[in-house]
Amino acid sequence: MADHHVVVVGGGFGGLQLVNDLKGAGIRITLVDRRNHHLFQPLLYQVATTILSTSEIAWPIRHLYSDRPEVTTLLGDVSGVDTGAKSVLLRDGNVLRYDTLVLATGATHAYFGRDDWEPVAPGLKTLEDATTIRRRVLLAFERAETASDPAERDALLTFIVIGAGPTGVELAGIIAELAHKTLPKEFRNIDTRKARVILVEAGPRVLPTFVPELSDYALKALNDLGVEVRLGKPVTECTAEGVQIGEEFIGSRTISWAAGVQASPAAKWLGIPADRAGRAVVEKDLTAPGLPDVFVIGDTASVMQESGAPVPGVAPAAKQQGAFVAKVIHARMKGGTPPVFKYRHQGSLATIGRSAAIADFGRIKLKGGLAWWIWGIAHIYFLIGTRSRFAVAWSWLWIYLSGQHSARLITQRETIADEK
Amino acid sequence: MADHHVVVVGGGFGGLQLVNDLKGAGIRITLVDRRNHHLFQPLLYQVATTILSTSEIAWPIRHLYSDRPEVTTLLGDVSGVDTGAKSVLLRDGNVLRYDTLVLATGATHAYFGRDDWEPVAPGLKTLEDATTIRRRVLLAFERAETASDPAERDALLTFIVIGAGPTGVELAGIIAELAHKTLPKEFRNIDTRKARVILVEAGPRVLPTFVPELSDYALKALNDLGVEVRLGKPVTECTAEGVQIGEEFIGSRTISWAAGVQASPAAKWLGIPADRAGRAVVEKDLTAPGLPDVFVIGDTASVMQESGAPVPGVAPAAKQQGAFVAKVIHARMKGGTPPVFKYRHQGSLATIGRSAAIADFGRIKLKGGLAWWIWGIAHIYFLIGTRSRFAVAWSWLWIYLSGQHSARLITQRETIADEK
Repeated sequence: MADHHVVVVGGGFGGLQLVNDLKGAGIRITLVDRRNHHLFQPLLYQVATTILSTSEIAWPIRHLYSDRPEVTTLLGDVSGVDTGAKSVLLRDGNVLRYDTLVLATGATHAYFGRDDWEPVAPGLKTLEDATTIRRRVLLAFERAETASDPAERDALLTFIVIGAGPTGVELAGIIAELAHKTLPKEFRNIDTRKARVILVEAGPRVLPTFVPELSDYALKALNDLGVEVRLGKPVTECTAEGVQIGEEFIGSRTISWAAGVQASPAAKWLGIPADRAGRAVVEKDLTAPGLPDVFVIGDTASVMQESGAPVPGVAPAAKQQGAFVAKVIHARMKGGTPPVFKYRHQGSLATIGRSAAIADFGRIKLKGGLAWWIWGIAHIYFLIGTRSRFAVAWSWLWIYLSGQHSARLITQRETIADEK
Repeated sequence: MADHHVVVVGGGFGGLQLVNDLKGAGIRITLVDRRNHHLFQPLLYQVATTILSTSEIAWPIRHLYSDRPEVTTLLGDVSGVDTGAKSVLLRDGNVLRYDTLVLATGATHAYFGRDDWEPVAPGLKTLEDATTIRRRVLLAFERAETASDPAERDALLTFIVIGAGPTGVELAGIIAELAHKTLPKEFRNIDTRKARVILVEAGPRVLPTFVPELSDYALKALNDLGVEVRLGKPVTECTAEGVQIGEEFIGSRTISWAAGVQASPAAKWLGIPADRAGRAVVEKDLTAPGLPDVFVIGDTASVMQESGAPVPGVAPAAKQQGAFVAKVIHARMKGGTPPVFKYRHQGSLATIGRSAAIADFGRIKLKGGLAWWIWGIAHIYFLIGTRSRFAVAWSWLWIYLSGQHSARLITQRETIADEK
């Protein structure tokens, strides 16, 4: 087995946990990602909302394994898998032979068949997505300051977030804080305190994966921040002019999408069944049906708990699956019996702006300031490396003390003229 | 004069100094910039070379004046000036009437009539320029790791910097450190220590604005870092394949441009004479000839010292000019005699990688470690705000102690496939 070659596609939470746990196993590993960095997605919304800088939540993957000579990191875009030849095909023409393949390729946002909404309502999955949303939010205030038409000014000062899961709630909360607390003193022709932030959710409550009591608290916290929450009606149209919700059309120039995800094409590459969101339906040991040497983990895998509920698409689940596959590979090497994957739910956290959060650890449910501190400490703990922990803690402390966000940069375009 | 309206175009060093110095003058000020941020350009090369993050050296302009209700900040792109109607024309159709106009619109890189070189040899003037160079440098190493053709691999591992002024020297020095010290342990198929970093200069020595003794020291420091310096021959061709220098063609996939600057079109807007680099030739009081209410300052103005030498295009000169124009405006309000602009040279600093720098304060000339500390302290001192000073000091300290750069992110593109 010394020459066993594990190819891992995807350097997210699941892929990294797997590579970490294979340390010392005497296995040659190739880790492929189409990005050069691992991204701490739970804090991505803070880049989109000018709180954190890109380099505070992303790390070059190859640096993480500089001390592991058996790990080769490749920047590469997978175009397919030849399971017969046991090979991964890369778009640059390179081919990677594997003995064991692990697909941990994640998910991206989905528009339920309305991909034409994407340009006007960008989602939040990559660093570029985050700087795009940041640029659009900041530019809307800038344009409102110079707009002469009142209707246009109102649309520029209306921010719509679609989808009230954790990302949508967090985005809406921080945009409201930005408009109502951070920016008012800086504009002369507009009153940013009058900006509307509207959170739209087709379902009956915000943060629907939490118990109703905590959803109610989150709704109240959102209202306190000045977020208008629209529940129970789906968005039926989304254009550069605004959003149609039921009978009502709301003019807006800044729409963000946090409503749906679509798995990566892992199932397609393997030619195996997928669920409605495109997730590969895998066996109890996370292998692809009929392909014992191929594992699928994380957001791109559809796995059921014993209760019959699906394993949620969250970072802890991906990490547990990465750790599990490492155990299976270890067990196979030693000829032992591979275990069965069991998801252990460690609790859920969500935050709503400064000082408000909810936490659900099964029997213990928290809301308010204590939950917010737990949220902050947990997120700093899960960041990679001393430097990032210090940097994020420092950024948060600074904002907490001064109220001033530090990453309020409009970038990516040459001039505002290009925007039009 | 209570209703006197000063329009300042450009939120660089000159423009900000002027607005700062007009505090309490009872004058209405509008500050226009096509970016939403002031950029600390002297450290921009550190963003390009993965040392600093974008938000550490850029600040939202309007935040700097949140406590000055008489200052209005506008994000706008100037398309022209109507000196007859005393109006600035913006590309979005807005028109700004002025009583006094100050153009502080800076300069950009110039290719001496070979604008076709720009796509293959990007310059370094904006945050996007910096992230572009960062992306290209990091991608070259990534591609070399997977390249199968040895000639292609060599070209990918050859980094050419054109122009040996401070920016070119700093860029070449840090790229060499990155290749020879930071990255070697992270790649499996290539030896980044064998990467070539070539600094090309048409003139006879590096850092030609310094005395020859300090240039000699800088050359030695560059050689110690493993930078190949080619002096005395201009680049005659620049393509995606590489660079022609005299008889020699050097294959390279990563070329950076630090060779020339071109002033903004301020002179054209005003219809006044310009020098060869496009700088508006102004009067001794920095007004445009025949336009006593229009000042031109900073990199876009051509001003002579008493010695007959031109005022250099550096941050301290722009700041002095901004302060001077504030004095003239004050003097005019009080009916006093306006002064004549005199440039005071405060010294020159340049750094060459870790622990090497040169400093020229007239009679006192320094090189080596002490100059490097002075350089670092001076740059932290001139940053805006406590937060940035701490953040940059912390980033530098971290790199100094750990040798690890923190901002090694490839961004701006969806996947590497888009690059091709």
